Amino acid sequence: MNQPLKGIVPPLVTPMLNSTTIDVEGLERLINHIIGGGVHGLFVLGTTGEAQSLSYAMRRQMIELTCKFANGRVPVLVGITDTSMEESVTLAKFAAQNGASAVVSAHPYYYAAAQPEQIYFYQRLADQLPLPLFLYNMPSHTKVIFEPATVRKLAEHKNIIGLKDSSANGTYFQKLCYELRDVKDFTLLVGPEEMMAETVLLGGHGGVNGGANIFPKLYVDLYNAAVARDFEKINLLHEKVMQISKLIYGVGKYGSSYLKGVKCALSLKGICSGYLIEPYEEFKAPEREIIKKALETIGL
Amino acid sequence: MNQPLKGIVPPLVTPMLNSTTIDVEGLERLINHIIGGGVHGLFVLGTTGEAQSLSYAMRRQMIELTCKFANGRVPVLVGITDTSMEESVTLAKFAAQNGASAVVSAHPYYYAAAQPEQIYFYQRLADQLPLPLFLYNMPSHTKVIFEPATVRKLAEHKNIIGLKDSSANGTYFQKLCYELRDVKDFTLLVGPEEMMAETVLLGGHGGVNGGANIFPKLYVDLYNAAVARDFEKINLLHEKVMQISKLIYGVGKYGSSYLKGVKCALSLKGICSGYLIEPYEEFKAPEREIIKKALETIGL
Amino acid sequence: MNQPLKGIVPPLVTPMLNSTTIDVEGLERLINHIIGGGVHGLFVLGTTGEAQSLSYAMRRQMIELTCKFANGRVPVLVGITDTSMEESVTLAKFAAQNGASAVVSAHPYYYAAAQPEQIYFYQRLADQLPLPLFLYNMPSHTKVIFEPATVRKLAEHKNIIGLKDSSANGTYFQKLCYELRDVKDFTLLVGPEEMMAETVLLGGHGGVNGGANIFPKLYVDLYNAAVARDFEKINLLHEKVMQISKLIYGVGKYGSSYLKGVKCALSLKGICSGYLIEPYEEFKAPEREIIKKALETIGL
Amino acid sequence: MNQPLKGIVPPLVTPMLNSTTIDVEGLERLINHIIGGGVHGLFVLGTTGEAQSLSYAMRRQMIELTCKFANGRVPVLVGITDTSMEESVTLAKFAAQNGASAVVSAHPYYYAAAQPEQIYFYQRLADQLPLPLFLYNMPSHTKVIFEPATVRKLAEHKNIIGLKDSSANGTYFQKLCYELRDVKDFTLLVGPEEMMAETVLLGGHGGVNGGANIFPKLYVDLYNAAVARDFEKINLLHEKVMQISKLIYGVGKYGSSYLKGVKCALSLKGICSGYLIEPYEEFKAPEREIIKKALETIGL
Repeated sequence: MNQPLKGIVPPLVTPMLNSTTIDVEGLERLINHIIGGGVHGLFVLGTTGEAQSLSYAMRRQMIELTCKFANGRVPVLVGITDTSMEESVTLAKFAAQNGASAVVSAHPYYYAAAQPEQIYFYQRLADQLPLPLFLYNMPSHTKVIFEPATVRKLAEHKNIIGLKDSSANGTYFQKLCYELRDVKDFTLLVGPEEMMAETVLLGGHGGVNGGANIFPKLYVDLYNAAVARDFEKINLLHEKVMQISKLIYGVGKYGSSYLKGVKCALSLKGICSGYLIEPYEEFKAPEREIIKKALETIGL
Repeated sequence: MNQPLKGIVPPLVTPMLNSTTIDVEGLERLINHIIGGGVHGLFVLGTTGEAQSLSYAMRRQMIELTCKFANGRVPVLVGITDTSMEESVTLAKFAAQNGASAVVSAHPYYYAAAQPEQIYFYQRLADQLPLPLFLYNMPSHTKVIFEPATVRKLAEHKNIIGLKDSSANGTYFQKLCYELRDVKDFTLLVGPEEMMAETVLLGGHGGVNGGANIFPKLYVDLYNAAVARDFEKINLLHEKVMQISKLIYGVGKYGSSYLKGVKCALSLKGICSGYLIEPYEEFKAPEREIIKKALETIGL
Repeated sequence: MNQPLKGIVPPLVTPMLNSTTIDVEGLERLINHIIGGGVHGLFVLGTTGEAQSLSYAMRRQMIELTCKFANGRVPVLVGITDTSMEESVTLAKFAAQNGASAVVSAHPYYYAAAQPEQIYFYQRLADQLPLPLFLYNMPSHTKVIFEPATVRKLAEHKNIIGLKDSSANGTYFQKLCYELRDVKDFTLLVGPEEMMAETVLLGGHGGVNGGANIFPKLYVDLYNAAVARDFEKINLLHEKVMQISKLIYGVGKYGSSYLKGVKCALSLKGICSGYLIEPYEEFKAPEREIIKKALETIGL
Repeated sequence: MNQPLKGIVPPLVTPMLNSTTIDVEGLERLINHIIGGGVHGLFVLGTTGEAQSLSYAMRRQMIELTCKFANGRVPVLVGITDTSMEESVTLAKFAAQNGASAVVSAHPYYYAAAQPEQIYFYQRLADQLPLPLFLYNMPSHTKVIFEPATVRKLAEHKNIIGLKDSSANGTYFQKLCYELRDVKDFTLLVGPEEMMAETVLLGGHGGVNGGANIFPKLYVDLYNAAVARDFEKINLLHEKVMQISKLIYGVGKYGSSYLKGVKCALSLKGICSGYLIEPYEEFKAPEREIIKKALETIGL
């Protein structure tokens, strides 16, 4: 895996037939679909992957299958986010055995920790990992941020090589870029796709964008346009991303609209099952109809 | 187990020699100490038990050991809080096999859910449980509350028999009492010990109070005084509880002061190890000295 | 005014004919209605009084009219909560000139302050006040709490004589009681009426309860029952309070249900206008019908 | 005033000699300093201007003096943010009489409102205003956001011509750009200077950046470089902005570090007094020394 890791690394959804059975064929189709779009890596077991809702057996199965189906075509990053350090390490070892390139960890999400406690936790975790680690800033789910000075401190650890930021806070991301500017090869990726183009223009290395499950080439093209500073293309493709954000992620009433929209669109496109694990449920007929029309409007 | 469950059900700390080894002898001493104080039950694998920081193997060990050491003297409640429903069910089955009386579940703490999603989750969970279930309201850690109307709805499920509230919100607790007033034998327990006496006076069934790890008899006596409406005793014992709250839980800088204080006090009293699992650390010498003096001041 | 101030001090609604005109006759009827119920004081220009939505001219008019209509029968407390210390002082002087007994101030609600800044602010404010001051803890609106140690420090100021807590946090209120236990005559009142009985039983001095606009005698009776530790009465009257909480404050979709419910009930009882100032609107016919039925069910 | 309003519109600090006296000479120097840097407008009485801490008399004085000292060289925008609609309108009329070009309003910051209530409030407010209105999204202080669909709805009002976003949420800002893309001449400005360059590159109209009080030309140059898509200049100047963000705004312990840093730097540069109004205090000698060294490091 090149460092810094550059480009589009989609956070894979976890295709499920029901709450305890992975849609294996759907997953293979999904991975081929995504890699076919030219992406630069895959991120399995992230927030979009409903990782925390999966049993450990299913998490291991997702690692195994994803590495197998990716088959070395792109690096595979594996989410090991957990509240137990020991379980994180166990999962990381399993990922290494299956050929993954790196692991990703959001802050333990039950007990909140102060910044010194966070440093203590991640230094001890990184010591035990068989693979390089990306930090994952996700305050809406973990209640805690990685402060820029904390990231700078953790970047001294040889196993900590990057950060994915899903806070949507543009000031925070720029502070990270500035704080880490002299750390060679440290990767900074952004989660929210609405911000991908602008962060790449201003120093970010790429995006971990959920929409790339559905339209991988669009996000790759936008990333390339941003790298090339081709504003005609950027404006065209970025508007398409915003259209997806509004029409696919903005349906339904609760905070889970984004996840439901992505899975519903994948199901409508015949790629994989749209089932969601508890506490979420997949869209029913009325919302499916809205998503269907949205896909027609988007027209990719 | 009687229903409603009444009295003091201490949330057991998990005595640890280090991050991967349970202090088995300490745990046996702790359980004998607590049951010796006259408590009405034990709650293992709660927030005070650092459950989410333990590996699954350690969680199972804690269940096994607690049931063994309790040896039927009091009912054992087991925390099965998890983000994965399947892992919750697996742990509940293990608890049942070991002789536990009930299980306890706080809302899945990574993905927040709206109230209808919460009802969907808990109805499906309760369907699969081999033991009766207490809901556990803990919004500071899970980001989500169980609204009173949601609890009322869930109480219709034959396997859902009570709720432990750790929100510290007195209005919320009274709304629960009112909403559930006609549900026969539904148990309502309060977490924060500072509120135990007043909630028992106004309709609550008891407390899941962390300080009862250290001073079990004090909390049992206060509970009994509240049941007897003996205000002379209530005022005397409640003031002692407030003193513990201030002197033992108010040391140190971060949100983890309560946990560190309880474990430090237990260690100083020679009951069990004071070690905390990452992301937390046990108190060092200066704070230990403060807790030592606090114990002398409290003088129980 | 006796110190500590004990009993029921209703937070007056501000009866309005429209957004710029006070319903003067309604206000006179309301005050006579409330005082007729035996309350121990009046609190004008609080959160229930929509004070922050009123122009300064209307705030002054409310002070003038309330003092005039109360006519010395009970002490009048005046909200001077403001983001500008100078405007707070100006309003306090006007209150003193009109015969008010004390003023009340929630934390400045635009710029959040740390505890040392809060102490700095309130010491300078109290220095300039012509009347004694009650602090007003209202974190849902001000984003900031008065930590117990801060209150203890501020209580050393001769002009700071009490605190009204609307946080609904029972642990917090008990910590205040404990922290202030040796400060002679310091008043601790609770806002949420659902908690009034229990806080009076455990050391609080009374309630600033919105429902006492509608049913003043009920809250006075409940307060007296709590003082007398008459649990038969407490249970009966407290259940009535909970019924009001559910049926009158639980209608409608937004956070403003409580305010709309109180004003609607007052309007239906013919006491004063139910109009609310922007950003809120009074209930329309469907919700009015629900409140009407609720009043019949409550049947006081 | 051109529409959309493009460029740098610094949020003026309010120079104070003490809590009740404006530093009039300092204000004149400050305005000449800022306009000399080539800015495109001035915004008086914003969050940086400590508007909510000023008495109404001082707010009026600031409007009067700013319009007088600006003397028509650039448009003056006036903050009328208030919890009382009537006071907002009164201030807007005063601004119009003094020659201001537009007014700016953040959501009423005591009572939170739901989106329909927000629309109701701003439509009624805009009806009464003698000047065009910019909405001001500031959720950290007001607890409420203007959802993109709400802004789209409000943009239909002829008096509502733009929005300043200080949320630092990059996804939100892009959603606004997309939602408003077909509303002719609607202005979208960003508050946090760390995000100014990237939002201008991706469709924003400019910045309301506090650092432009100290270094107006830097922000104007960066804005122009972003408009010209001159990445060599952007990278150079943006790094300088990030350096200011870290070294000037990152000193001190509380949330008020930004305000204290800006005022301290202005004082050290001899432009105006560094005094802050309660609840804040200006930096003392140790922090002043740090800011002094920071200014030397920045070296502009």
